[in-house]
Amino acid sequence: MAKEIVSFTPDECWDLLGSKEFGRLAYQLDGQVNIAPINYAVEDRRLVFRTGEGNKLLGVLQNPDVVFEVDDIGPEWAASIIVRGKASELAHEEALWADQMRLRPWIRSEKQHVVVISPTEVSGMKFRLHQPWKSMFPQP
Amino acid sequence: MAKEIVSFTPDECWDLLGSKEFGRLAYQLDGQVNIAPINYAVEDRRLVFRTGEGNKLLGVLQNPDVVFEVDDIGPEWAASIIVRGKASELAHEEALWADQMRLRPWIRSEKQHVVVISPTEVSGMKFRLHQPWKSMFPQP
Repeated sequence: MAKEIVSFTPDECWDLLGSKEFGRLAYQLDGQVNIAPINYAVEDRRLVFRTGEGNKLLGVLQNPDVVFEVDDIGPEWAASIIVRGKASELAHEEALWADQMRLRPWIRSEKQHVVVISPTEVSGMKFRLHQPWKSMFPQP
Repeated sequence: MAKEIVSFTPDECWDLLGSKEFGRLAYQLDGQVNIAPINYAVEDRRLVFRTGEGNKLLGVLQNPDVVFEVDDIGPEWAASIIVRGKASELAHEEALWADQMRLRPWIRSEKQHVVVISPTEVSGMKFRLHQPWKSMFPQP
């Protein structure tokens, strides 16, 4: 029988992370769990994102332990990559290199701060999809 | 100038939540933040999902305060809905009604437990996308 769940190697995780630019950051603020969509880039197997003054920045300064998720849903498989790591804000001079990298915010807003997540654990899995109801409708 | 960020009304949030069946749950386990992709259904403006014995179940039993995210990326807008709420496991008799609802796991695995998230806060926003690099490549 074909495998239902397949674990990714670290290289496969990074391939998928590098191919995307949108994921979700889970972090704590005042002891509460929070989740936020972010645009990110991969640089040297670290995740980099820009943010304004707000909960995300406050949260990662209070508690650097964060988790990040990216997924990829295809017709037969759903893949999800989870990165656990330590977030830190880059100082102004360091932050300048973020302007040179593939970090392209999708929306226009003031995002003066650059945060880097240094991974402590990266894992990924893909799941074979069983969606029999999809064949119950005419396909486009 | 056209608006760059638009807030959703509660009805719009629930319309989008009801139109999807895949999102991400952020929860705490032993004080650590966690994130996991889940299949869910909406029933009576509550979120319902199935899970096996594992971190998600342990986490929500330890700390019922969770956050859930669903997003929808189109060519011009990206929408994200965030639901903050209290998670609780349904007892066996109550859990039986989950068999009657639109809760369709995408993968085959043992998921004996039914968890309901009762929202305390629902918010949604859509962001106008600016991805000029997309027009730098030939379109399919």
